[in-house]
Amino acid sequence: MIKVSVMYPNTAGARFDHEYYRNKHMPLVKARMGDACKSYTVDKGIAGGAPGDPATYVGMCHIFCDSIEAFQAGFGPHAKEIMADITSQTIPTSPRSSRSAKSS
Amino acid sequence: MIKVSVMYPNTAGARFDHEYYRNKHMPLVKARMGDACKSYTVDKGIAGGAPGDPATYVGMCHIFCDSIEAFQAGFGPHAKEIMADITSQTIPTSPRSSRSAKSS
Repeated sequence: MIKVSVMYPNTAGARFDHEYYRNKHMPLVKARMGDACKSYTVDKGIAGGAPGDPATYVGMCHIFCDSIEAFQAGFGPHAKEIMADITSQTIPTSPRSSRSAKSS
Repeated sequence: MIKVSVMYPNTAGARFDHEYYRNKHMPLVKARMGDACKSYTVDKGIAGGAPGDPATYVGMCHIFCDSIEAFQAGFGPHAKEIMADITSQTIPTSPRSSRSAKSS
């Protein structure tokens, strides 16, 4: 099992339309990826590590797939449409991405 | 439900003893936090967002709690012991931390 994490840095003035992201964007991702996306989660950043610190990321999503190849096969053909679904008006467009193996 | 994510940047030469982290460190965290830690997951970074990119984070853990207050009450009294359990020999000691609300 692998997890693709897309993490949106909490830069000054970053807007993030959580409502849209959770209710429209991620369901679109799931619909296009089909069974290649086993499940996904969405996070809303609320705080940093120390009391009073701002959240490192304003939002994150995590997409679970059987393998990197399965992710690429499911996401690749729809990448253009999926990326076009979000704009800098609603979601910061320079996220960090990271692929991880779930080890426990 | 909130999630506390601790993310270890994949800096040049960063060592990360995944075996120790998964089998010793995180079980210690769970044992000390008790019921305040509802569950946790551990990730091993394998790649970045684009083909050929290195992982953004060499390792991550995510601790699920009922609330920030529950996390603080469970973790705070044991923070010194938990932090002392990892050293720069095994785990990079400057992680990013972020607290998120799980929104779906």
